[in-house]
Amino acid sequence: MLKNIKADEKLNILNHSCAHLLAQAVKHLYPKALFWVGPVIEDGFYYDIDLGDEVIKEEDLEKIEKEMKKISKDGKRIYREELTREQALEKFKNDPYKIDLINNMSDDTVISCYTQGDFTDLCRGPHVESVKVLKHFKLLKVSGAYFKGDSKNKALQRVYGVCYETEEELKEHLAYLEEAKLRDHRKIGKEQEIYMNHELVGAGMPLWLPNGAIIRKQLENYIYDKERKLGYNHVYTPCVGTVNLYKTSGHWDHYKENMFPMMKVDEEEFVLRPMNCPHHMLIYKNKLHSYRDLPIRIGEFATDFRYEASGAVKGLERVRCMCQNDAHLFVTPEQIKDEFKQVVNLILAVYKDFGIKNYKFRLSLRDKNDKEKYFDDDQMWDNAENKLREVLNELEIPYFEAIGEAAFYGPKLDVEVKPAVGPEVTLSTCQLDFLLPRRFELTYVDNKGEKQTPVVIHRAIFGTFDRFTAFILEETKGVLPTWLSPVQVNIIPVNNEHHLEYAKDIYNKLLNNEIRVQLDEREEKVGYRMRESVINKYPFTLILGQKEVTDNLISYRKYGSDKTITVSQDEFIKLLTEQIKNKTVN
Amino acid sequence: MLKNIKADEKLNILNHSCAHLLAQAVKHLYPKALFWVGPVIEDGFYYDIDLGDEVIKEEDLEKIEKEMKKISKDGKRIYREELTREQALEKFKNDPYKIDLINNMSDDTVISCYTQGDFTDLCRGPHVESVKVLKHFKLLKVSGAYFKGDSKNKALQRVYGVCYETEEELKEHLAYLEEAKLRDHRKIGKEQEIYMNHELVGAGMPLWLPNGAIIRKQLENYIYDKERKLGYNHVYTPCVGTVNLYKTSGHWDHYKENMFPMMKVDEEEFVLRPMNCPHHMLIYKNKLHSYRDLPIRIGEFATDFRYEASGAVKGLERVRCMCQNDAHLFVTPEQIKDEFKQVVNLILAVYKDFGIKNYKFRLSLRDKNDKEKYFDDDQMWDNAENKLREVLNELEIPYFEAIGEAAFYGPKLDVEVKPAVGPEVTLSTCQLDFLLPRRFELTYVDNKGEKQTPVVIHRAIFGTFDRFTAFILEETKGVLPTWLSPVQVNIIPVNNEHHLEYAKDIYNKLLNNEIRVQLDEREEKVGYRMRESVINKYPFTLILGQKEVTDNLISYRKYGSDKTITVSQDEFIKLLTEQIKNKTVN
Repeated sequence: MLKNIKADEKLNILNHSCAHLLAQAVKHLYPKALFWVGPVIEDGFYYDIDLGDEVIKEEDLEKIEKEMKKISKDGKRIYREELTREQALEKFKNDPYKIDLINNMSDDTVISCYTQGDFTDLCRGPHVESVKVLKHFKLLKVSGAYFKGDSKNKALQRVYGVCYETEEELKEHLAYLEEAKLRDHRKIGKEQEIYMNHELVGAGMPLWLPNGAIIRKQLENYIYDKERKLGYNHVYTPCVGTVNLYKTSGHWDHYKENMFPMMKVDEEEFVLRPMNCPHHMLIYKNKLHSYRDLPIRIGEFATDFRYEASGAVKGLERVRCMCQNDAHLFVTPEQIKDEFKQVVNLILAVYKDFGIKNYKFRLSLRDKNDKEKYFDDDQMWDNAENKLREVLNELEIPYFEAIGEAAFYGPKLDVEVKPAVGPEVTLSTCQLDFLLPRRFELTYVDNKGEKQTPVVIHRAIFGTFDRFTAFILEETKGVLPTWLSPVQVNIIPVNNEHHLEYAKDIYNKLLNNEIRVQLDEREEKVGYRMRESVINKYPFTLILGQKEVTDNLISYRKYGSDKTITVSQDEFIKLLTEQIKNKTVN
Repeated sequence: MLKNIKADEKLNILNHSCAHLLAQAVKHLYPKALFWVGPVIEDGFYYDIDLGDEVIKEEDLEKIEKEMKKISKDGKRIYREELTREQALEKFKNDPYKIDLINNMSDDTVISCYTQGDFTDLCRGPHVESVKVLKHFKLLKVSGAYFKGDSKNKALQRVYGVCYETEEELKEHLAYLEEAKLRDHRKIGKEQEIYMNHELVGAGMPLWLPNGAIIRKQLENYIYDKERKLGYNHVYTPCVGTVNLYKTSGHWDHYKENMFPMMKVDEEEFVLRPMNCPHHMLIYKNKLHSYRDLPIRIGEFATDFRYEASGAVKGLERVRCMCQNDAHLFVTPEQIKDEFKQVVNLILAVYKDFGIKNYKFRLSLRDKNDKEKYFDDDQMWDNAENKLREVLNELEIPYFEAIGEAAFYGPKLDVEVKPAVGPEVTLSTCQLDFLLPRRFELTYVDNKGEKQTPVVIHRAIFGTFDRFTAFILEETKGVLPTWLSPVQVNIIPVNNEHHLEYAKDIYNKLLNNEIRVQLDEREEKVGYRMRESVINKYPFTLILGQKEVTDNLISYRKYGSDKTITVSQDEFIKLLTEQIKNKTVN
């Protein structure tokens, strides 16, 4: 994970100074250039530039970098000057961008500018002492950006870069960026035809292509089986509800800005649902329950819709239409501990199957003093929080407590997973809820014949199938374990004339064993087809030639290995089916 | 299937006369009664009655029937009288309903009334000669109805009945109604907890309860496997699209009134999709295709939304939110025949598995003379229609042709299935489409390197999972084949003290064999629990007592049989798993 440059005082000054260096170099090469703002960001800096009709392309960055090096070598001092508003307006009178900045400053702002050699820029500072210090930098990319972020305004050019104190740190940063690019699920998703987007369907509304759909279905089958064995009952419910449903649940009051707009039909007001909890509450309420029926575990692969700004959506990771691996457990207060434990164990089992090792449990508790934020029932909170702690201690799971991070309706446990690149992601969650069952007036009859309100546990293991798939693609760099792989075996007959028949025979045998198999019978050289098989990251590539035909054998290469292994047909099928059945992680 | 009474001239007159008889009897029993209209409908007649504060309950119908019999026995003649508008207004001056009717008659209407004994009613007629003829009738139900169907108007009481010429026909009608009631999937759906509705989710938006969800998942797995083996690739796509997507497809212009209203978010206009064809067109278009890649078969269990009047929705049969067993095949013109044949064979295979025998293939062709309704390309139509005919002839499938019933975009084949009760339903469909691929500018490169437009075949086998489930519930009266049954085995230990341990052992063995099993360990008598097992229509009920425990045996009863059969554990598991695997129809 990269350092947060913006938050590091020293790196912040260094990068901000480097933005000026960039501007100076651009001014040398494009004398008509005008500059808007050049702030430091988490992973470096950028500068927004108005070049009139000229355009900076990726290939121009090298030229600009060269000029920056030259200026740096020249080693000019950087000095600060303070100006009155009048002086500033006079100094920058030919630069409408700086005039705009000055006019928007409050009266008590100290206006300052920084000069290095032939270049002066309006700036709050501080900066390094001399351009000499700016040695270990790199320009990263150039993109378009509207003046003040408004698409009605002029399009500027934004050049990104980063600067460090040492060459080692810079190299580390660049290697990390390279790695992140390789792992980006949007790149892998495109190369491996996992999903697509289309403006006619809409931003943040991915379409899962056949390969992606196989991965998702495998994930669905996997978690469905696990949940069934734990006594979950699955349902299908519509991904809409009436506005009144969300008024009952409270979402309409507290979550409306994350919802799509309402659709009025006759007298009914429908809305795309942001969450499916209310639907599961109604299913619980559909019949009378005795304490003997509890716990009741209702699961669903539930399509939900949330409004995200179109600029914020990202691949499968951040979408407007998602599918949750959701469940609600309806329990008596006495059952909280056991059910919570079952959920935690399920999370651990799933992470083990997927080889996820780098994660932390966060127990979010209320702030006892904040009676406004939290549903007021101290005894209930204390009781619940203690039970959750007890479970984690009994399971000997390390966790940290986050006071004041609980939901309004109860304490919760989140699992923060540290991916290979990028910030931590919350995949799984398990939340106690004392409120929703009251809002929906849910009851069960206890052993004394009295009506009681059940406690609801919201839980998601994968989180959404969308985000989990993005996560797995990035973790594996697209080299999926065999059981998840859209194509599991790619067969290459060495020579169609002599070996195709045998290859087809093997193809059908594998197909009958429910292997996802593909036959590459193109008239291309074996080496070429093998390289393509590696590019496509197929777990197993079969090369079938004369020896294999004569002796009824199979020669295969596993992805990532150069070794060709020859076995009998039965051995291969056994090896493969066991690997799939055991969900072996690569 | 019932005769259409409204369409049968003789029965129409008979039932209309019986409506007057009903009114006369009501007038005798409720002297304040006023009458609005009493029309003949497909399955009998009704009369809308204003009783002031009085209410007719179901149990009052017998009393009214008795009075009708009495009047009928009395045998009064029915005679017609024609009136001028003034005479009519004078005659019915104390009856606001008849005044309303008269005032709404056009000037050239012949106003007539019919009198039998002490009762006269405004009526167009004709009627039977005497009330004596009205002997074989039955009042069926009473419900509320608003004056002129407007909920702002006064609530009237609507009494339904039916009348025949012979007692046999009446009995047949009543037996049919009884059968239809038994088979009604809404009744079965409630009893067996298949699905529910809730006003907070909305009309026509069923929630599939755990039992229903198992049935649906079994259906999904079943058809998924069949389609995979035929080379289908499945996808998941969002159940919304932009308005522009449906403008491109043409649905926005031609289908808008069946769609939910649009949702505007930022600059995008989203709409719940009524069909998923456009999404599949975009998936095809996502990459370049050579003729070698075709046919491409894209399948999806696709959630679609269609606006139906809230009064028209019915259980799982007619809904606003549905899940299609949909697919689109992208083919070259030369492949139409083979692909069409593959679809027809799939339909036949599925019907065989479900024991569906009573169906007809309807081939819908264009009307050659109607150049407006049909996409104008005679050669293409002739070619396509002939190919479809050839396939049906080659497969020796009886079919009938429906000229002028083709879709605008191409000919189609529908399968009309005759259910045990109710009108024919169209389950499967297979449609050629020459238009949508043009609208979306789809292409493939042919063997000469030229760009060509593929033909699209739309097809659905189950139709929707919703409607198919409703159909199967009605066909089987809720006695599902074992493979579809939410609970497959119900275990009853004779005596918990001595046999529960063994029962639990069997329970776990079945569970490990992926049988859906349930253990009834309630302290109730064996006979009581067995009767409940029959009421719940569980396919297998196990009764485990001393003999079974001692000799490690299993005694079971199949649903519908009184015979108890005793076998070894292995034999039972083998029998059961084979029945499930073979999808044996009951």
